[in-house]
Amino acid sequence: MDQLLRVQNFTVSSDGIAAGEDQTLERPFGHVDPGRLFGWAGATASWPMRTDAGGSRGLDDYFTRDFPRNIGAEIMGRNKFGPQRGPWENYEWRGWWGDEPPFHTPVFVMTHHPRPAFTLSDTTFHFVDADPATVLEQARRAAGGKDVRLGGGVTTIREFLDADLVDTMHIAVSPVKLGSGLRLWGSPEELLDRFHLDVVPSPSGVTHHLFWRK
Amino acid sequence: MDQLLRVQNFTVSSDGIAAGEDQTLERPFGHVDPGRLFGWAGATASWPMRTDAGGSRGLDDYFTRDFPRNIGAEIMGRNKFGPQRGPWENYEWRGWWGDEPPFHTPVFVMTHHPRPAFTLSDTTFHFVDADPATVLEQARRAAGGKDVRLGGGVTTIREFLDADLVDTMHIAVSPVKLGSGLRLWGSPEELLDRFHLDVVPSPSGVTHHLFWRK
Repeated sequence: MDQLLRVQNFTVSSDGIAAGEDQTLERPFGHVDPGRLFGWAGATASWPMRTDAGGSRGLDDYFTRDFPRNIGAEIMGRNKFGPQRGPWENYEWRGWWGDEPPFHTPVFVMTHHPRPAFTLSDTTFHFVDADPATVLEQARRAAGGKDVRLGGGVTTIREFLDADLVDTMHIAVSPVKLGSGLRLWGSPEELLDRFHLDVVPSPSGVTHHLFWRK
Repeated sequence: MDQLLRVQNFTVSSDGIAAGEDQTLERPFGHVDPGRLFGWAGATASWPMRTDAGGSRGLDDYFTRDFPRNIGAEIMGRNKFGPQRGPWENYEWRGWWGDEPPFHTPVFVMTHHPRPAFTLSDTTFHFVDADPATVLEQARRAAGGKDVRLGGGVTTIREFLDADLVDTMHIAVSPVKLGSGLRLWGSPEELLDRFHLDVVPSPSGVTHHLFWRK
C-alpha cells in the first residue's frame, strides 16, 4: 500500500476562505471566528480536543474519528504553528495546543527560519526549510509506512496541490460567507481535472467535499 | 470511554431486507444476489476482502475503512457463520472467509449448538449458547477495552435491539427492492424513539443511515 498524503477536516467558508488576515496570538484565525467554521467538528464525539463525554456519532463524526487512522506524520505551514513571522526572537512558543498536542506523531513545520526540534508528550515538532517534495520525503520516512497528513493552512495546501503531491483531501465547506481572507479555491471544480469528487451535505449544515486522485 | 456495541456496513434493500430465505452453501444470501446489495462496499479502496489496488476513496470508503477501527471483538449469529442448522454433523465447516478471515479479533458465534473454538490466522471463533447480554459481556471482556462489532444477520441484530444493547448502527440502504426475505425493519423511523439518525445519500446510490443512542 502506498503512503498517501491526506488533507483531513480542513474547513473553509462557502466562498473558499480558511482563515482571516492579521493572525495574532489572540486571534489564531485572524478576523475569522473559528467557531463559525469548525462548530461542526467540535460537536462530534471524536473531536480530538474534546474533554467531556458526549457528542454526535453521525456523519460528521466519521470525519473527526478518521483523523488519526493510519497517520504516521503531519506536515504543516509555519502560520498554522504560530503567529510569529520572520526570524525567531526566542524559542518559547511551542504551538497552540498546550502540553498534549492532538497529533501524536512527528510534525514537520515548513519555515524559512528553522529552529531546534522539541517534543511535547508524544508529538515531536521538526522545523524544515525545504520544498514540498523534500519535506514529504522526510515525513514519509518518519511515518513508518503510514500515511502523512497535510495539516494546512491554505498556503501550504496550495503549494502541495501545485506540486501535484496530494492524494486525498477532505474539505468541509461551512454555510458562512467571509468575503476576504486566505482563500483555498474559487470553486472546488478547479480540481476536477485531477481528482474525483464526492459532495456530501451533512445534516449539521456543512458540505463535505471528498477528493481522491484520478 | 465506554465500550460501544456497533453495527457497521450492514446493508439492506429499500424494503429493509438483508438476506434471502433458503440460505445454502452455494447461496449464502439465499435468493438474494449479494452483489446487488454490497456492490457499494466492494467498489471502495478499503473493502476488507479487496485483493487488488484501486477502489474509490469518497464517502463510501469512510464506512469500509471504519470497519476495524477500535474494534476488539465481533458477535455474529450462527446463520452468518454458515448455512448449517441444528446439531453439527462434524466440525469441518470453518466459515465462509477462507484461511484469512477479515475479523482479526475474537468472534463470538451465537448458537444453541456450541462446538470447540478454533483459530484461523488472527481470528478465533468461539461458540456460545447464551442470551445477548451475556454474550456481549463475554465479547467486551475479550475486546481489551475496545468496542464490539455486532456483525448480524438480521435476527441477531433484532435480538440486540430488542434488548436495547446497541449503541451505534450504520445501515446502508441499497436502491433495490427484494419483496421477501429476512427483514430488518419496516422503516428506519421505528428506531427514532431511542436513536438519533443521520440519513446520508451517497453518490454510489446507497443511502447511509447512521444511528446513535439518544
